[in-house]
Amino acid sequence: MRIALLGGTGDIGEGLALRWAYDTDHEVVVGSRDPERARGKAEEYETELDSRGIDRKITGFANEMAADRADVVVLAVPPYHVADLVAEIADRIDEDTLLVSPAVGMKKRQGGFDYNPPSAGSVTELVAETAPDEVPVVGAFQNLAADRLANLDVELELDTLVVGDDGDAKENVVSLAEGIEGIRALDAGPLANAAEVESLTPLLVDLALHNDGLHDVGVTFE
Amino acid sequence: MRIALLGGTGDIGEGLALRWAYDTDHEVVVGSRDPERARGKAEEYETELDSRGIDRKITGFANEMAADRADVVVLAVPPYHVADLVAEIADRIDEDTLLVSPAVGMKKRQGGFDYNPPSAGSVTELVAETAPDEVPVVGAFQNLAADRLANLDVELELDTLVVGDDGDAKENVVSLAEGIEGIRALDAGPLANAAEVESLTPLLVDLALHNDGLHDVGVTFE
Repeated sequence: MRIALLGGTGDIGEGLALRWAYDTDHEVVVGSRDPERARGKAEEYETELDSRGIDRKITGFANEMAADRADVVVLAVPPYHVADLVAEIADRIDEDTLLVSPAVGMKKRQGGFDYNPPSAGSVTELVAETAPDEVPVVGAFQNLAADRLANLDVELELDTLVVGDDGDAKENVVSLAEGIEGIRALDAGPLANAAEVESLTPLLVDLALHNDGLHDVGVTFE
Repeated sequence: MRIALLGGTGDIGEGLALRWAYDTDHEVVVGSRDPERARGKAEEYETELDSRGIDRKITGFANEMAADRADVVVLAVPPYHVADLVAEIADRIDEDTLLVSPAVGMKKRQGGFDYNPPSAGSVTELVAETAPDEVPVVGAFQNLAADRLANLDVELELDTLVVGDDGDAKENVVSLAEGIEGIRALDAGPLANAAEVESLTPLLVDLALHNDGLHDVGVTFE
């Protein structure tokens, strides 16, 4: 599959790009508002993989071009850019495109972060509202520990929660996620659960701040 | 310490009563609206412990009497009873009583449960609003897998998240929680984080419903 990581120059985008390129045969495309930056990052990822003996072609484009003909589009941008980005790529995606939302709204307060969802209730629901009706939208990858994801020396052993109202789309995202070694993807129910999943992320940030030894913490369900 | 488990006849109350009696030297008191029922359950817990060679005295009282002279009061009742219960015991608790809130508001929908907090934002914040100002309030034990907790044959290996605005009170609850073998207690920040912690519980219920092998699922942070 062709996976476009829009905002693929950020931390979660970088981690997913490296892991999918390292662990799977999917074609990885990096998107950014600035195509130069996308190309630069794509080359950086290629070099990283090459240093581990993996010869992979990773390309970089402006977001709109990166989304074009992608089977999967991951919106790895800050939450306040998500709606504009979906509008920008709307005519490049259709019912065969999996649109995946990993972003989380957070607001800094003294000593930590609060969950700060958009008025749609969650970023994932905002994506579903903004995207063309026929495009299946799935929330996933919100709670991954970004630094560990981007460090190929680290074994992950992390769970990711997948929410959505389209069962087939969710199954496809579960498979995609579990293509990455050390990630287990769990079905966390409908889109309406997205806020519960997203709000775990500021909680993880606070756990890292308040407890020794929990830097870049992730979550597992047993 | 003397720990009063109000609603100690319910599932989380039962688990905490058995575990504290089994793993620690704390005095465990079971509270219920119906003192007969409290005494009956207390005896049941004694019998369960006796069958494992543990000779412990567990007493049962009406909630108000159970709270009297307790060092720790755990409000293990359904969320819609919490405010009334706190009002009922208000003159039995003071600045030396640790008031612990494990309850979570949930609402059934098709195929799962939604988080359904009271207007205070969370049950824990409702407790803090209702309790006398000088009583320290801590949220904890919301996300424990109840059946595993109540089954002394099961090794727990679970995390519990502790929220509150009083650092000493939180530390005391962390110690109490970690007195139970297999529980690790993490500082999850201020009272304002209670909703994030509580909303994990309906998510766990949904994960159990939607994924094989996750019956009575708990959570760990690594």
